[in-house]
Amino acid sequence: MKNKLKPETIVIIGAGNVATHLGLALKNAGYQILQIYSRTNASAKELGEKLDVPFTSELNKLIKTADLFLFSLKDDALVSVLEEITPLSGLCIHTAGSLPMEVFKPYVSRYGVLYPLQTFSKNKEVSFSEIPVFVEADNKDDEQVLLSLAHSFSGNVQVLTSDKRKYLHLAAVFACNFANHMYTLASDILENQDLDWSLLIPLIEETADKIKSLPPQKAQTGPAVRYDTSIIGKHLDLLKNNIDQKEIYEVISKSIFKKHYN
Amino acid sequence: MKNKLKPETIVIIGAGNVATHLGLALKNAGYQILQIYSRTNASAKELGEKLDVPFTSELNKLIKTADLFLFSLKDDALVSVLEEITPLSGLCIHTAGSLPMEVFKPYVSRYGVLYPLQTFSKNKEVSFSEIPVFVEADNKDDEQVLLSLAHSFSGNVQVLTSDKRKYLHLAAVFACNFANHMYTLASDILENQDLDWSLLIPLIEETADKIKSLPPQKAQTGPAVRYDTSIIGKHLDLLKNNIDQKEIYEVISKSIFKKHYN
Repeated sequence: MKNKLKPETIVIIGAGNVATHLGLALKNAGYQILQIYSRTNASAKELGEKLDVPFTSELNKLIKTADLFLFSLKDDALVSVLEEITPLSGLCIHTAGSLPMEVFKPYVSRYGVLYPLQTFSKNKEVSFSEIPVFVEADNKDDEQVLLSLAHSFSGNVQVLTSDKRKYLHLAAVFACNFANHMYTLASDILENQDLDWSLLIPLIEETADKIKSLPPQKAQTGPAVRYDTSIIGKHLDLLKNNIDQKEIYEVISKSIFKKHYN
Repeated sequence: MKNKLKPETIVIIGAGNVATHLGLALKNAGYQILQIYSRTNASAKELGEKLDVPFTSELNKLIKTADLFLFSLKDDALVSVLEEITPLSGLCIHTAGSLPMEVFKPYVSRYGVLYPLQTFSKNKEVSFSEIPVFVEADNKDDEQVLLSLAHSFSGNVQVLTSDKRKYLHLAAVFACNFANHMYTLASDILENQDLDWSLLIPLIEETADKIKSLPPQKAQTGPAVRYDTSIIGKHLDLLKNNIDQKEIYEVISKSIFKKHYN
């Protein structure tokens, strides 16, 4: 007998980086994707063609009979889309780190979250099998549905509450988004000196690789952790015409120092 | 006929992370290391035993007949050691990013720099063959000596002036030291929530891996580059009891925004 809870058909609402990569992973795992919706026809078409499924940019043409609706939208857009398309009888999930599951409550009866802890860019492939995926649902049956869905493409799945998930998302902003901006500032410094930013690649790789064998606090090197005020002073002098970079240098060096000497 | 310029024997002054890894690389490349000096007997002994060479913590016992003296000390310590041990007839080099080559000029007649652009921790092995190494010397003969020395363990060697090298070092502080501190802050956030910091490892790996195919500015993701003020506001609220982390979150988010929208 068919398990009515197990989703076979999926509609994806959103066509950004997360929707693109999850869409590919779900299609590869054998789920039937019925339709892609995106606010702009261009992005709906791009993902629809990539997944070889129908697409639309008109909410009134959304297929409402899917088993699962996967919302991958900017947080602010989710509620306004829900207002237009509900009621829906399928299981509705979002993929956002900082949005509580309860955002669905006024609109649908079955809802949950599937949050992949990863950074996605459209044209960079990722290996989904090691990505930690965190699921949450309003009832145990739907929790099982989401665990099974996530296990179809990742070997690293766990249940996590909305409250814990928001801290996970905050930590990811530091570990990924802010670390990447450090790479950007470093590459700006080199390019201003006509040096190739890619000289930094082995250093960046090793910095990331190190934490597989040393916790990051133990892996810390550099003038701030040595409290080498002579080098710090020279660096601040090099940055004297770039107020923003200088401010970042100062607040992070201060934080490294406090972390290691307090 | 023996090339008098080619170093065969080396004395290493310093026993920190850089001295340890360069010592291993030079020994593996076939150079004869005569002695290790370090200010403390414990660290001199540790590296001496690791390389299986004599060691001392007394400057008056330093072997002065080596072809090459490799100084790998805190910047401030170099001059005081030079004052005590000079004159020396061998080629004297340091390994520091922010110290000009000319620091040697008052003390010795042959001098230069060999700067490996990498982060070293004592108990983490690194593959030297891909590390970019930057050399500088006061004359063309010694430049050739240092190019050949560096080529003995790295496939990525170039000549770089002191003036450019200091910017390279500054960029490395952002790309490595500051990125690693972002990992530390992220792991603190997770551990405060009883979540395992190692959940972040696949994200950190992918963030570093991405820049091999996308320049870091194009790889940027997260609330700041999307100008998602709703999430930024929630994150600042989660950090309201941690003034330092909140300040770092604010200044980096502002910098990401300015970089991408100016």
